[in-house]
Amino acid sequence: MHGVALYALEGIPEIRPGDDIVREILASADRGPGIGPGDILVVTHKIVSKAEGRLVDLAGIVPSPFAAAFGQTWGKDPRQVEVVLREARRIVKMANGVLITETKHGLICANSGVDASNVPGDCIVCLLPLDPDASAEHVRRAIAERTGREVAVIISDSFGRAWRNGIVNVAIGVAGMDPFADYRGHNDPHGYPLVASRLAIADELAAAAELVMGKLDARPVAIVRGYAYGAPSEGASHGRHLIMDAARDLFR
Amino acid sequence: MHGVALYALEGIPEIRPGDDIVREILASADRGPGIGPGDILVVTHKIVSKAEGRLVDLAGIVPSPFAAAFGQTWGKDPRQVEVVLREARRIVKMANGVLITETKHGLICANSGVDASNVPGDCIVCLLPLDPDASAEHVRRAIAERTGREVAVIISDSFGRAWRNGIVNVAIGVAGMDPFADYRGHNDPHGYPLVASRLAIADELAAAAELVMGKLDARPVAIVRGYAYGAPSEGASHGRHLIMDAARDLFR
Repeated sequence: MHGVALYALEGIPEIRPGDDIVREILASADRGPGIGPGDILVVTHKIVSKAEGRLVDLAGIVPSPFAAAFGQTWGKDPRQVEVVLREARRIVKMANGVLITETKHGLICANSGVDASNVPGDCIVCLLPLDPDASAEHVRRAIAERTGREVAVIISDSFGRAWRNGIVNVAIGVAGMDPFADYRGHNDPHGYPLVASRLAIADELAAAAELVMGKLDARPVAIVRGYAYGAPSEGASHGRHLIMDAARDLFR
Repeated sequence: MHGVALYALEGIPEIRPGDDIVREILASADRGPGIGPGDILVVTHKIVSKAEGRLVDLAGIVPSPFAAAFGQTWGKDPRQVEVVLREARRIVKMANGVLITETKHGLICANSGVDASNVPGDCIVCLLPLDPDASAEHVRRAIAERTGREVAVIISDSFGRAWRNGIVNVAIGVAGMDPFADYRGHNDPHGYPLVASRLAIADELAAAAELVMGKLDARPVAIVRGYAYGAPSEGASHGRHLIMDAARDLFR
């Protein structure tokens, strides 16, 4: 019976800038499901961002006139709008008080991923990690060094989508695995060639992990056990490979 | 230790029009993980479509001049293009040989969900179910009647996304559960109100299920066990509620 198991790590404390999140992850795993070779660790970007000090105190932000006007029109803190704009390299859509931006990483999401939820302090906002793939690789390597176990690591965030209601967890940083399962060139059981079948496995793993994480329960890390991911290869190794090239993207 | 388990059902035979898929699902579940109350069954739309006879023999299709021109330009079977157009109520994007359409259900996807993979016969294509929510409800009710167990049912398909490479499994039909986990109005552990936190749980469940289904292995049904979904309610009960209203959708 082929099965995959999803576990949340419990009791990870509030993370502060400079904290060693791998120590907290290993301590929590020891109290729970452990960490086995081939496990996939899905880590909410927020604890990574906090550990990396990617927090901004809005008290120190002077909004530009553009940010001030947008904030006033739509009832948003102009200082937070300013931070959103500073994290963006392009505004993809700006309508009805919504800012869909392209971040400096190339991610397309609401508000450049800038978020005030699950952050202590009244006017502190959290940014995305500077380089989520590097953050994932850092966690992966630290776990390998300290435990001798090779795992894959996904840094996740919850994004809205075009055309569909609700947000879903996606992989913004990936290390130690192929983020895809690529069936292009294979035939189905009837012999028909599978032309469009490149599955974004890392996004599906991030989505699966969300089912045990919860938004209110301070469970920022999940373990996926029993999924046989592929080895990373050239052009299929990191979260950035999940981002569609602008030239191919019909909706950018 | 909070855990969710994903199991694929093995040995489901090729489904033909008129087949009783619930009988096949129950027989396979009996040989494997069983079906328990509160389980979520994720069923690939393809076996539903086949059972419902949503197959088209291209030999009987005469392409319109528009379909013929597009097919010839891009090296696609003009008869299949014709079927795609017949399943669409609107073309959202048409570029580089790609047809992104809005189906009669309101789903936005490539080729109206029309697909020749995993279908027997040289020139047979498979359409989406006519009403995936009704199909999900049919399966849910039949399982309740035959086993006495209340489960949730998701009919899934793999869709491409704007901005991101690869396809992911999403929920096109839902019955027996709230397709969302709605945290709007709740506060996070720091007391901050969660304004944008409505998770598309049914899509995350569909994505998770894909991890055990595989594209080549004829495992069209998965069971998700241990996830405490919410009860369906007005406006949050079916797959159609996952489709964004055109008026709110910035990318339609």
